[in-house]
Amino acid sequence: MLLVVAALMAGACAPADHRVADEAVLRATDEKWSATAAKNDLDGTVAYYSDDAVLLPPNGLAAKDAKSIRANWAGMLGPNSSVSWKPAKVEVAQAGDLGYVWGSYVLVIKDPKNPVDDRGKFVEVWRKQADGTWKCIVDTFNSDLPLPAAPAEKK
Amino acid sequence: MLLVVAALMAGACAPADHRVADEAVLRATDEKWSATAAKNDLDGTVAYYSDDAVLLPPNGLAAKDAKSIRANWAGMLGPNSSVSWKPAKVEVAQAGDLGYVWGSYVLVIKDPKNPVDDRGKFVEVWRKQADGTWKCIVDTFNSDLPLPAAPAEKK
Repeated sequence: MLLVVAALMAGACAPADHRVADEAVLRATDEKWSATAAKNDLDGTVAYYSDDAVLLPPNGLAAKDAKSIRANWAGMLGPNSSVSWKPAKVEVAQAGDLGYVWGSYVLVIKDPKNPVDDRGKFVEVWRKQADGTWKCIVDTFNSDLPLPAAPAEKK
Repeated sequence: MLLVVAALMAGACAPADHRVADEAVLRATDEKWSATAAKNDLDGTVAYYSDDAVLLPPNGLAAKDAKSIRANWAGMLGPNSSVSWKPAKVEVAQAGDLGYVWGSYVLVIKDPKNPVDDRGKFVEVWRKQADGTWKCIVDTFNSDLPLPAAPAEKK
């Protein structure tokens, strides 16, 4: 009987490792997010963030609430905008509660007054919600392109 | 007997949650890392990365190997440099295998030719190693300061 108990406990306690499946879901979620942003769908895009998410944009202050995150995205999406990204690496923790994605993005805004033709890198941290969906809790990105020379530095 | 088995299994299978302790260790690790960089200790600073780490610096390409990561840090540390950072948020996954930190940094380089007076935000993803220590696997940061105006945009 002790052997049966031991066998039951070993079987029942072996940690279920769903990382491969979790990572496939998180990758697909991130790809859907990029497709949503590519359609310039502001409501759809900000819906990927958790309620307590932070967005840490380059050359600006951290956006620590939904209103600030939305304002950041409103500045990037629009009829002249073309944004998309793709994961280079997706990894989920063993218990399936946390994960991250990093990869590369392209952002083009055909605004005659303030054109943007940017490409760079991003890091997203994700948390699995009670309903099994993933939400982004920390989001940041930065450019691959060199800084424009500061006027004061010009010779 | 079935009750005993059930009780044993429930007790043995309750997931041990060491997140509070893990997060304290990760926070202390990050604080030591900042103190190491503040001393301009290049070897000590790059030792906090895993062998497969990536550093995604602003306005430059992703550094995907130890040599490139070291070259990035060599450009930030030195006798004229003063760099430090502090966590705003530290979180570890339930199984204690993955974690992340985001927070704020200050970087000052008193180089008469190319002075830097920067502050901004960072995101680090960490993985607990086989020996129980934490190593940074993804590291990125970006500035709070506005971009310098591009010369071509000047009126």
